Amino acid sequence: MRECFEIRDTDAGGRIGELTVPRADVTVETPALLPVINPNLDTISPRRMAEEFGAEILITNSYIIHGTDDVRERALEDGLHEVLDFPGAIMTDSGSFQLSEYGEIDVTTEEILEFQHRIGSDIGTPVDIPTPPDVDRERAEDELATTKERLEVAETVDTGDMLVTAPVQGSTYPDLREEAGRHADGTSLDVFPVGAVVPLMNDYRYDDMVDVVAAAKRGLGADAPVHLFGAGHPMMFALGVAMGCDLFDSAAYALYARDDRYLTVRGTRQLEDLEYLPCSCPVCTEHSPDDLRALPDRAREEELAAHNLHVTFEEIRRVKQAIRAGNLLELVEQRARAHPTMLDGYRTLLDHAAQLERSDPVSKGAFFHVSHESARRPEVLRHHERLERLSVPDSLLLTEGDAPRGDRYDDSWRVEPPFGPFPRALSKSYPLTAEVPVRTDRAAQAAAADGVAKLAAANPDADLALAHRGWPADVLERVPDSVDLLDLTGA
Amino acid sequence: MRECFEIRDTDAGGRIGELTVPRADVTVETPALLPVINPNLDTISPRRMAEEFGAEILITNSYIIHGTDDVRERALEDGLHEVLDFPGAIMTDSGSFQLSEYGEIDVTTEEILEFQHRIGSDIGTPVDIPTPPDVDRERAEDELATTKERLEVAETVDTGDMLVTAPVQGSTYPDLREEAGRHADGTSLDVFPVGAVVPLMNDYRYDDMVDVVAAAKRGLGADAPVHLFGAGHPMMFALGVAMGCDLFDSAAYALYARDDRYLTVRGTRQLEDLEYLPCSCPVCTEHSPDDLRALPDRAREEELAAHNLHVTFEEIRRVKQAIRAGNLLELVEQRARAHPTMLDGYRTLLDHAAQLERSDPVSKGAFFHVSHESARRPEVLRHHERLERLSVPDSLLLTEGDAPRGDRYDDSWRVEPPFGPFPRALSKSYPLTAEVPVRTDRAAQAAAADGVAKLAAANPDADLALAHRGWPADVLERVPDSVDLLDLTGA
Ligand SMILES: [Mg+2]
Ligand SMILES: [Mg+2]
Ligand SMILES: [Zn+2]
Ligand SMILES: [Zn+2]
Repeated sequence: MRECFEIRDTDAGGRIGELTVPRADVTVETPALLPVINPNLDTISPRRMAEEFGAEILITNSYIIHGTDDVRERALEDGLHEVLDFPGAIMTDSGSFQLSEYGEIDVTTEEILEFQHRIGSDIGTPVDIPTPPDVDRERAEDELATTKERLEVAETVDTGDMLVTAPVQGSTYPDLREEAGRHADGTSLDVFPVGAVVPLMNDYRYDDMVDVVAAAKRGLGADAPVHLFGAGHPMMFALGVAMGCDLFDSAAYALYARDDRYLTVRGTRQLEDLEYLPCSCPVCTEHSPDDLRALPDRAREEELAAHNLHVTFEEIRRVKQAIRAGNLLELVEQRARAHPTMLDGYRTLLDHAAQLERSDPVSKGAFFHVSHESARRPEVLRHHERLERLSVPDSLLLTEGDAPRGDRYDDSWRVEPPFGPFPRALSKSYPLTAEVPVRTDRAAQAAAADGVAKLAAANPDADLALAHRGWPADVLERVPDSVDLLDLTGA
Repeated sequence: MRECFEIRDTDAGGRIGELTVPRADVTVETPALLPVINPNLDTISPRRMAEEFGAEILITNSYIIHGTDDVRERALEDGLHEVLDFPGAIMTDSGSFQLSEYGEIDVTTEEILEFQHRIGSDIGTPVDIPTPPDVDRERAEDELATTKERLEVAETVDTGDMLVTAPVQGSTYPDLREEAGRHADGTSLDVFPVGAVVPLMNDYRYDDMVDVVAAAKRGLGADAPVHLFGAGHPMMFALGVAMGCDLFDSAAYALYARDDRYLTVRGTRQLEDLEYLPCSCPVCTEHSPDDLRALPDRAREEELAAHNLHVTFEEIRRVKQAIRAGNLLELVEQRARAHPTMLDGYRTLLDHAAQLERSDPVSKGAFFHVSHESARRPEVLRHHERLERLSVPDSLLLTEGDAPRGDRYDDSWRVEPPFGPFPRALSKSYPLTAEVPVRTDRAAQAAAADGVAKLAAANPDADLALAHRGWPADVLERVPDSVDLLDLTGA
């Protein structure tokens, strides 16, 4: 059990956790959003982050601090908490992204971690190699080997009670990401950023992002706090959390504000395109779009940054509440409709339903069937696995209708798409308390048919019959011939 | 053209309009939310509604005013605007709901409208009969006949420049609702409430609600301002607007607050169940859930009512912005995932795609394919209708891949699910600029196959071939045998 991280609640792959940051003497509740602070240009002060937005942790770049003489000297003398005036936890990034952009510089892992320690960072980061997506395998392997070596060095550096991150690389090779996760998890390091996913997000490759995170998670232990490095758009927090990410950082709130871009959970808008402000944060209840447009540049940037941060923290709270209520996947369902690429991300998430199922609670509020995709949720998978273990009488009617009279069958079970058959005694237990639409869909029927098929396969000698409400022929093809069919709609 | 209502923009069945209310000397922009004010217990004052929440119009109940001696006398003496201290437009409800609950009272249509006029109402309401859902047809017809008579009387009452509503009844009989709409539209009355839908909403029958509204809309002219009477939950505004409703009223903001219920666009929450506030309105940025719970009853009710109103007006602004941006149906897509009954509502909305298509703009921002349901949107329907009119060469390849080399075909058209085939020259025009997921779905492929079938049916002599990316057999069955098939995935 990792000492610095404790999981309090789970839903699908998501969790509410507590990250203990000893050097800052604070406990950060996750999922957490770390605003990125550029000490040279802070649109919204760290103090305001804490007091107005409730930020418990932020991240700043040690490379920039190192390269800015006056900031560096003040940080070395007074410490980052004093320089930034922030009461919560401060994470520092090593600047490996900048390093990789501008060519390698000759600092060692020891030096960079010691520098972070000396300036008072609470969570430091070694210089890893952020291998981009789609590189050839040899490069991905070589660079991962270097990252691993540096993590092993990082383990040996004495940095007191500063936590140290262990970035997980491996480009878009799932097996490398998994191996990198397993290696990082085996070190004594503390926090696990999934690195180099920014290029995927910049290209809206949420499907590939999900595959990369899923692979890293398979390698990492369930108790590892995971940072989705560079993911700051609130549209994708629910998806990222559902995959099992705990920390997110946002430079977007400020960068987008500089560019007159307005964040929403449905996507990014240009301020000039807004005739109404679809938000009720303090900025948006005090201003009309025209008011905002009329502000001087600096004031407009500050107001937009404040709005962007409000919707960002709001979504983090919404995600946490969803985990508590057990409806995180219902939130993912909604966010998946923000853009076709987000739908690709959700559809890919469901490829990993078995992986999510392992942490998904056995009982939650109520399962809502709200799309064709719902039929592929971990709860459906779990029910199908359970079907293989339920004992079945010699002759059994599976029916979408009422229990039959007479003694033609030894028993009758209910059938409900997307779950399929279950004994009536289970009707009151999760997920069979599901709310489903009156107008069901083919995906739900197909999943239910698969459930029937599972039951039939596990009980080859039982005499099974299925009474369905007008399932189409291609759905019924999923049911083995040994099962008698009856259409309750009389069609 | 109705003088009091002008349509400024449309998207699907939704529109941004201007309702001119001459007696108040104001123009109300629609979609508009009318907070319901009970003059005997106002949690949030009408003045605050206008100044803090931007309410341009509110609604109050003339039956309650009539029955409360001091309020009645003050209203008759000083007028409602003075009594309520509200600068916008004031609509009065006749109280037909209360009348129907507590038994009929002996006031005439003349008397009730004259009373509303005398107290200074800007939009008055005759006493109609709000026939509930599912009554037998005879009752629905009889009561509708009475409502019609009263509307005809209402036309003759001299109420100066007060606008008068013409409620549309007819229970759950679509033909009666349509006829009622046509009759109301034929009167000289001004605003058209779709009545008695509250019982449907209370039972989460959003599917039946959509059918009722669609029927009423078929009878009403496109220029009629439509009030979805009693619909105050922000979760369903996008759906209601997409059907063509312009006015919504909310008593929910206050009633729910009294009961410690917290509104969200994803559904209603009990304050006691919230560990986080998924909102950034002024109430939710100033308070934690524990803060709210610790407030004295009256203060807590007021804060919850303020939150409820903030999310309500926020959603109205979001809906308006969606109409301006041309992505109202994308918003409906998201809201449809709030609850399976909302999905039923959206699936039912798409049954009326041809009706929505008539007001849907020819060109918008970008069509997002974000669910199986997207394949049934009006834009897909319109494209399929257009396919029947496009001219086709003798031999034509329809392909999901690149244009072929060589001269085997006279031309090649692109195929993109859910639209199906189109000439490459149309690629840059709406809706064929659509954003679609990489992981397409069977519904999109089936719609595309239907497009191919339409083209084939309209051009029986053309030599057509379809090159698809691994469409399943049951989808390909929708394509006529005369079309040659080629699977680009080589499967
Ligand atoms: Mg839970
Ligand atoms: Mg428009
Ligand atoms: Zn805002
Ligand atoms: Zn709020």
